[in-house]
Amino acid sequence: MKSFFPYDSVELSTNGREVVILDQTQLPTQEKFLHLTTAEQIFYSITRLKVRGAPAIGIAAAFGLAMCVNRFRTRSLQALEKEFLRVKHYLYISRPTAVNLMWALDRMERCFYATKQGLETADEKHAIEVIRNSLTAEARAIKTEDVKMCEVISEYGFSLLQPGCGILTHCNAGHLAVSKFGTALGPIYMAQQQGFSPRVFCDETRPLLQGARLTAYELTKAGIDVTLVCDNMAATLMAQGKVDFVFVGCDRVAANGDVANKIGTCGVAILAKYYKVPLYVFAPTSTVDLSCKSGDDIVIEERPAFEVTDMYYSKPMAPKGVKVYNPAFDITPAALIAGIVTEKGIIKPRDIKNLKKGK
Amino acid sequence: MKSFFPYDSVELSTNGREVVILDQTQLPTQEKFLHLTTAEQIFYSITRLKVRGAPAIGIAAAFGLAMCVNRFRTRSLQALEKEFLRVKHYLYISRPTAVNLMWALDRMERCFYATKQGLETADEKHAIEVIRNSLTAEARAIKTEDVKMCEVISEYGFSLLQPGCGILTHCNAGHLAVSKFGTALGPIYMAQQQGFSPRVFCDETRPLLQGARLTAYELTKAGIDVTLVCDNMAATLMAQGKVDFVFVGCDRVAANGDVANKIGTCGVAILAKYYKVPLYVFAPTSTVDLSCKSGDDIVIEERPAFEVTDMYYSKPMAPKGVKVYNPAFDITPAALIAGIVTEKGIIKPRDIKNLKKGK
Repeated sequence: MKSFFPYDSVELSTNGREVVILDQTQLPTQEKFLHLTTAEQIFYSITRLKVRGAPAIGIAAAFGLAMCVNRFRTRSLQALEKEFLRVKHYLYISRPTAVNLMWALDRMERCFYATKQGLETADEKHAIEVIRNSLTAEARAIKTEDVKMCEVISEYGFSLLQPGCGILTHCNAGHLAVSKFGTALGPIYMAQQQGFSPRVFCDETRPLLQGARLTAYELTKAGIDVTLVCDNMAATLMAQGKVDFVFVGCDRVAANGDVANKIGTCGVAILAKYYKVPLYVFAPTSTVDLSCKSGDDIVIEERPAFEVTDMYYSKPMAPKGVKVYNPAFDITPAALIAGIVTEKGIIKPRDIKNLKKGK
Repeated sequence: MKSFFPYDSVELSTNGREVVILDQTQLPTQEKFLHLTTAEQIFYSITRLKVRGAPAIGIAAAFGLAMCVNRFRTRSLQALEKEFLRVKHYLYISRPTAVNLMWALDRMERCFYATKQGLETADEKHAIEVIRNSLTAEARAIKTEDVKMCEVISEYGFSLLQPGCGILTHCNAGHLAVSKFGTALGPIYMAQQQGFSPRVFCDETRPLLQGARLTAYELTKAGIDVTLVCDNMAATLMAQGKVDFVFVGCDRVAANGDVANKIGTCGVAILAKYYKVPLYVFAPTSTVDLSCKSGDDIVIEERPAFEVTDMYYSKPMAPKGVKVYNPAFDITPAALIAGIVTEKGIIKPRDIKNLKKGK
């Protein structure tokens, strides 16, 4: 299926020595690409949300790890291993909530040691070359599989829709957050191509405005009928009967089906329950974390006050020094979720623990 | 009871020829007072929210009407009457949702004709003088009664509280919106003075940030423990058990107990219901409009897109030309409201139709 977008939000250069990202903090006013060549730049791009969205963070970290290994000058396999582990552990803590980050980095580590094991008799120079190629290929595979997975997820989501239906989405789980069509926005792109003319409402998603800056941007660019609202207007839209479905992405799914996603998701889910609108969470199985029994076990990242009081504003919008609470995510209880849309089908939250996870 | 504030948000000068308002669009960075001397300036100050809050709008309109009559040069009672009605009808449509505006202007009209009737035999010059004085006194009375009413309302609200309790509020229904302590924030100021140390959480209240700019400002100034959150974080606060009560103001109460208030109130009310937190609406009986059978009959003001996409921002925060829906108020169904706190006591929403309205 043709993509609406001429570029990706995260890419690894052909020679594997640069990670190229679209700086999402500059959207929608500027389309600026960054060429990253150090672990520190990757870390900073993740923490400052220049690259964001659970799957995109995982891909950026895997690309970053491969890029660092490719650029690291050494003839010693031991030194390469040390550098690999340094970068891996460093990137591992760049953001705490999305599990894709850890999942992708762990997968890169398994690849490293599987490749190394098969090379025990080879000479060191050759071994380093093979490991570099192997990690680069693994990182590219993570992205390729992600694109395929998103397409399957989008198809399952699309199967829910009827022509002319209204969809509310929160934050951004589209092209910019993932690959190609994204997850929660994927069914919308498919519906558009099938002539379903979906009407989309997008929450601006304070404090970082991913809805206004990113979702409204990518949907507008794709020619989709999108209406921007403030987060606190979602109840009014539902009361007016304008919303048939709520579609959101996901940063982590616990074993009991509780879901961590962008702050505000839980509130939207409670409204949807009240107005009897089904809410679907879009999540590749790589997002499921069975080590978390419930949402209570998921670490919620707290971010700095200035994001609420100053950032994006022309001047401070709250009295100086006021206390601010700024959690970046919240937990939506399983009971509020109609279904979790994965690449293996649409699953009831309570059945998520029986899913066999992707590679 | 002592006020924390050295000045009021709306005042009529001693000679009755200037309306002085604190420009609320400049807070919290600037405390700027405007001296208004024309009907157009009053109208503009109301539409642009330089003066805002249902009771404050009513007071500003009454002061404005008195000021215009005081400044109007004429020796003809008929010309004065014509000017009075022109200004009254002009201000009447400055904002559609808050009923206090219409209530205060209608009360001024009743005062005009009651005074005029008592003067039928007097000479014209004297009659004009008496009418001017009478309207000025009536406008001042509206404010004085409002202050007293707010104090009574605050006391009823205070009776609900326990030491150390947590209160969530939305928008601004405090000193700036009303007189003295305001309505929804009144019990908090009283609790503070009684050593209850209430913990207050305030929604920033997009798009115009009345929570961040005004509520956080006036509570901080009064030394009250306040924490600012984005609107979409309220569910998380409730899930964590930090909120014992939700206190909000009110722009209009329908006969069935439905309430119009700042956009986002209905959403907060649904969350409060879900988490079993009681929500109280603070409303002088002047806010009750028995001509509206239910919330469906209340006109909801829609405001321009730039408030969501551009205002307060250093650059546009959404793609150019994106559709925006920006209702300024929403309707909270009576079933979600634990009680309506009026100057006549705390009333169940279904009993509001039996209330005898204030003067």
